[in-house]
Amino acid sequence: MTDLIRNPVFVLVRPQMGENIGSAARAMLNFSFNALRLVAPRDGWPNPKAVATASGAAHHVLDYAGVFDDTARAIEDCDFVFATTARGRELTKPIYTPEAAMTEARTRIAAGQKVGILFGPERTGLENDDIARANAIITIPVNPEFFSLNLAQAVLLMAYEFSRQEGSALPVDPGLAGAEIASAIEIEKLGDHYEAELETAGFFFPPNKAALMRRNLRNMWSRFGLTRADVQTLHGLLRQVLRRRD
Amino acid sequence: MTDLIRNPVFVLVRPQMGENIGSAARAMLNFSFNALRLVAPRDGWPNPKAVATASGAAHHVLDYAGVFDDTARAIEDCDFVFATTARGRELTKPIYTPEAAMTEARTRIAAGQKVGILFGPERTGLENDDIARANAIITIPVNPEFFSLNLAQAVLLMAYEFSRQEGSALPVDPGLAGAEIASAIEIEKLGDHYEAELETAGFFFPPNKAALMRRNLRNMWSRFGLTRADVQTLHGLLRQVLRRRD
Repeated sequence: MTDLIRNPVFVLVRPQMGENIGSAARAMLNFSFNALRLVAPRDGWPNPKAVATASGAAHHVLDYAGVFDDTARAIEDCDFVFATTARGRELTKPIYTPEAAMTEARTRIAAGQKVGILFGPERTGLENDDIARANAIITIPVNPEFFSLNLAQAVLLMAYEFSRQEGSALPVDPGLAGAEIASAIEIEKLGDHYEAELETAGFFFPPNKAALMRRNLRNMWSRFGLTRADVQTLHGLLRQVLRRRD
Repeated sequence: MTDLIRNPVFVLVRPQMGENIGSAARAMLNFSFNALRLVAPRDGWPNPKAVATASGAAHHVLDYAGVFDDTARAIEDCDFVFATTARGRELTKPIYTPEAAMTEARTRIAAGQKVGILFGPERTGLENDDIARANAIITIPVNPEFFSLNLAQAVLLMAYEFSRQEGSALPVDPGLAGAEIASAIEIEKLGDHYEAELETAGFFFPPNKAALMRRNLRNMWSRFGLTRADVQTLHGLLRQVLRRRD
């Protein structure tokens, strides 16, 4: 359990329910984050409900969580701190989207800084005294007429956003890992098979449209991105249809 | 409650717990999505637990939810369908990150298409028969050693990601909405005030460094992005310090 260099520090300020602390730990670990700190958890620490909720590997996140009496102590070693809040507009402090904030966080972490993210208590959110200790605010751009993100969901969105920007995953995997792609000659032969049988069946009619219809059909087979298995299926399918007709 | 053009359709396939259906509706509405469909909800429909969980405006999302007997029916009118699953790799189907998927969804929706997103039952996830009816797969790139996203969290991440890409929010708001920025002349006068008093105090020493020290000080005031209130505070602070000293 190392405080990885990629790791922003997730700081839960005066969290109330043990279950929510556990859920936040799970949300973090879903995206491989593990640096958790708690400021004055309402029900003390350790909290059996937090442990029960953070089942599996997530309980390690709790085991290594730092616990502090106040926000200032919890962020003492941080070079830059964000406060997640929908409020704080009276505080003359820059307000970031989650996207811009995690870009800033990644840049600073890459430069060797330690970045903290504050999350407030469930019902009330961060107080202005907490926000005043942050360098900047993160406001999640939610529906102004309906805002119901809970603590773990706010943690999840930051963890997701940071992780998304690292972009380790391929944006689109063609999903053909186990499949062999059909070669051009296989597709050509498939086209021949269909064209011959359709010719016999009188499909290419009227005669002045026949050439165009043939070309469209060839184009279609090429466009499908067929695998070798698809080609076999399509050959077999046509054969079977002809067999039943006879 | 309109099926807005920006709206992908969120399809919960065989959801089990009413609470999770309600939480999914809330997650959607947090980002202003409201097109929900249910396929064969385990405990029938309407479900009082779903309604209890989807408090406030989110119960409207449930009121307008379509209920269908099977997945095929639920996506009948969709032009393109994503299946959210960590499995399905045996199905020869493209696999998107959430980011790439929501880009594809936005492009298609902008072109007038209707896009659906399938989410599986809580414990088991989507079955291959459901996935086979989708055009593509979305796999959330989570920690391979710890995956515990629940139904509402998966819905939340898609809603967030789609919404993020719309980018209606300013990435960074300087957070000065209510504050008047100090004009250059006000900052110049502030600099004069400090320079004069510091001169008197013998701050600019040794003489061969004095010019550089003055310039650094001027540069500092300009760099701070001072508000008019900050300027007043800094004037007052200096005056007060001098008053106490005298």
